[in-house]
Amino acid sequence: MMTTVGILGGGQLARMLALSGAPLGLRFLVMDTEADACAGQCAPLLVGDYRDESALAEFASRVDVATFDFENVPAESAEWLAARVPVFPNPRALALAQDRLVEKNLFRSLAIPVGDYAAVATRDELETEVARIGGACILKTRRMGYDGKGQFRIRSVADVEAAWQALGSQAATVGLIVEAFIPFQRELSVVAVRGRDGEFRSWPLTENWHVDGVLSASLAPAIVDDALAEQAFAHARRLADALDYVGVFALELFCRDGQWLANEMAPRVHNSGHWTIEGSETSQFENHIRAVLGLPLGDTRMLGHACMLNWIGEVPDRTAVLSQPTGHWHDYGKLPRSGRKVGHATLRAETTTELATQVGQVGDLLARQSQVSPIVQALR
Amino acid sequence: MMTTVGILGGGQLARMLALSGAPLGLRFLVMDTEADACAGQCAPLLVGDYRDESALAEFASRVDVATFDFENVPAESAEWLAARVPVFPNPRALALAQDRLVEKNLFRSLAIPVGDYAAVATRDELETEVARIGGACILKTRRMGYDGKGQFRIRSVADVEAAWQALGSQAATVGLIVEAFIPFQRELSVVAVRGRDGEFRSWPLTENWHVDGVLSASLAPAIVDDALAEQAFAHARRLADALDYVGVFALELFCRDGQWLANEMAPRVHNSGHWTIEGSETSQFENHIRAVLGLPLGDTRMLGHACMLNWIGEVPDRTAVLSQPTGHWHDYGKLPRSGRKVGHATLRAETTTELATQVGQVGDLLARQSQVSPIVQALR
Repeated sequence: MMTTVGILGGGQLARMLALSGAPLGLRFLVMDTEADACAGQCAPLLVGDYRDESALAEFASRVDVATFDFENVPAESAEWLAARVPVFPNPRALALAQDRLVEKNLFRSLAIPVGDYAAVATRDELETEVARIGGACILKTRRMGYDGKGQFRIRSVADVEAAWQALGSQAATVGLIVEAFIPFQRELSVVAVRGRDGEFRSWPLTENWHVDGVLSASLAPAIVDDALAEQAFAHARRLADALDYVGVFALELFCRDGQWLANEMAPRVHNSGHWTIEGSETSQFENHIRAVLGLPLGDTRMLGHACMLNWIGEVPDRTAVLSQPTGHWHDYGKLPRSGRKVGHATLRAETTTELATQVGQVGDLLARQSQVSPIVQALR
Repeated sequence: MMTTVGILGGGQLARMLALSGAPLGLRFLVMDTEADACAGQCAPLLVGDYRDESALAEFASRVDVATFDFENVPAESAEWLAARVPVFPNPRALALAQDRLVEKNLFRSLAIPVGDYAAVATRDELETEVARIGGACILKTRRMGYDGKGQFRIRSVADVEAAWQALGSQAATVGLIVEAFIPFQRELSVVAVRGRDGEFRSWPLTENWHVDGVLSASLAPAIVDDALAEQAFAHARRLADALDYVGVFALELFCRDGQWLANEMAPRVHNSGHWTIEGSETSQFENHIRAVLGLPLGDTRMLGHACMLNWIGEVPDRTAVLSQPTGHWHDYGKLPRSGRKVGHATLRAETTTELATQVGQVGDLLARQSQVSPIVQALR
C-alpha cells in the first residue's frame, strides 16, 4: 500500500513538502491547530492541538512516518509520537533547536564559532551580563521565538530596565538569553540534508537579507571564497552528525571580517532554501522527504543562478513576475495579514547578468526597488 | 477570493495539473466517474458521470473556469458546461479531436500533410478503400480510441473480413475510418501552448517510441534539421489558430523520408511532454493552467537534455532512478493493472553524454535495456 507521511504543522512548508512529495507516490496527512491551515488545500488536514494525546494518537494511527513543518511543536509531543511511529528529525534535534541556550552551547562544543552570550534569570543577571559583554546586546526568549519575535535590542546598560519590562516576565516560562549584537557584514545560510544512513549534501551557500527580522530576499549561489564556504559546510556537517539529524535543516551564519559566527539552526526546510524548487536539480522539499523515507538523496547542484523575494502581508501583482522568462510564482493560498508570509517569487537564470536585469524589472514593475536592490548590487 | 479551476477527468494529467497549479495560489476541483481517481489524492474530487446534468451543475457551481485531462468527455457535456462557466480549450476543439475523420479533414484543409484515409460505413466500402489505397492499412474507430485501442491492422484485402468482424459493429455507433499504414522512420510530437490572446509557444520537438501502441519513451530536444522543425511548429500554430485553441496540446507527427505526416492532435497536456516538468523553464502543466487563466505564458526553453520513460502496468524499483543524479520520479498513486499508465521517470542532464550514461544505467538496473536502447542510440 501507499506510504503516508505525516507533517506536524500545516503552513507553507508543509504545503510545499506535500506538493513535492506527491510525485514520489506518497500520501500526506497534515496536522495543525487551525482549520484553514494552507497545507490543507493540498493534503488531508487533521485539526488538533499538538498537546492533545487523542489527536496525536489519531495522527499516529494514520501515518507511516512523521516530520515537521514547524520547530515549536512541544518536545514532549514529538517524544510521545516517536514512541509510536518513526519521526525525523529525531525529537532531540527538535528540542535542541527550540532552546537558544542549549543550541549555542552545542555550537561551542562543536567548535562552531558563536558570538558572546549568557543565560539570564533575573534583572540583575541581565545587567551584569550586558556590562560584561560591553556593547550592544539583544535580549531574547530562549524558546518559542522566530522571525524576530520575542527579542529586545539593548544599546547599553541604560536599556536594561526597558528590556526587562518587555521580556522579564518570560524568564520563568520560556527562559531568557542575552547575546552580544554582532555587527556583521553579511548573513548567509547553509541549507543541507542528511540521510538516514548519514549521507550529507549541501546546496550552494545562500545570501540573505532581512527586513524587520523577517527574510526579505535570498540569492544563490552566494559569492563566497571557496575556503570560507568549505568551513561553513563543515560546520553544518558536524552539527548534523552530532544530532544524528535526518532531513533538511538550515544553519544561519553571520559573516564578519571574513569569519563565520553561527546564529541559529532551523531543524526543517527553510525559507532561504525556497529557491531550490526551480534553481536546483532537487529541491529542499523533495530531499527532505527522500531523507525521511530513507530514499537516495537527490543531487543538490544548482541550475544557473537564483534569487527569491518573500511576500509578507500580501502578495503583489503576479503578472510582474510571470511576465519575466525566469519568473516563478508561489502563492501559499493564505489570506492577507500584516507580517504573515503569504508567498514568494523565484527568478532563475543562466547568467548573473540576466538575473540582475529581470529581478530589477520586477522591482520596478512592483515599485519594490528597495527589496530587490541588495540582490542587484550583489550580482554586480 | 481564490480561483478554483475545474478539471474534467481525474487521472495523472489532472493530478499533475493540480500539483503544478497550486503554487499559483489556485484551488482545484476534479470530476471523475471513479471514486479512486488518482488526482483525488491531490485535489478535491467530485464523483459523477459526465452526462449527468446534476453532477455537471454542481461542478459548474464550484469552479471559476474549467478544463480537461481527458479528451473523450462527451462534446455535449462540454457545450453544456461552456454555457455556464468559461471552458478552455473550447468544446469545438475538443469535438474535433474526438473524431479522426473530422480531424484529418481539418489537417488537409490547413495544408498539414496526412496519409491517405477514407471514412467507411460498410464492409464493401472498406474493401473498396483498401484496394484503392493499395497497401497495408489500419482500420480505426473514428471516436473513443486512444493508446492503440479500437484499431485493426490490415495487411492486404485478404484481411478485410477479419477487420470487419473485429470493428464493423462500431460503424453505426462511433464510426470507422481506414488509414494507409505509414512506414515512417520516426515519430515526433510538437507540444505547444496557445494563450487566450493568441500567443503561441512551443517546447522543442520531442521524439517518441511506442510499444504496442502505447508511448514507452521520449527524448527532447529531438535531433531534427532546423527547417524541418520550423515546418512542424508552423503546422501546430496553424492548427491552434484555426481552432482558437487555448491551452496546451500535442500534434503527433510521423517523419518519413524527411517529410512530416500528421497523425493526430491531442487537445490536452500530453504524455510526450511530461519531461517538461524538470527539463524546461516552465512545464506543460503550468503553462496549460497559465493559458486557461489568461496569465502570461511561461518560457518554454529547455534546461539541458531530457528523456522520459513510461511505466505501464506497474512501477519498477524507484531507487534505480532516484540514485541517478539526473533522475526524477513520478508515481501517479494508482494501483497496478495491466496496460495502465502508472508512472514515469524523467532524466535531465546538461549533456547528451551524461544523459546517455545515466539512462543506460537505469536500463541495466531495471533490466529494461529494450526500453532505454532507442534513447541511448539516438543520443549517440
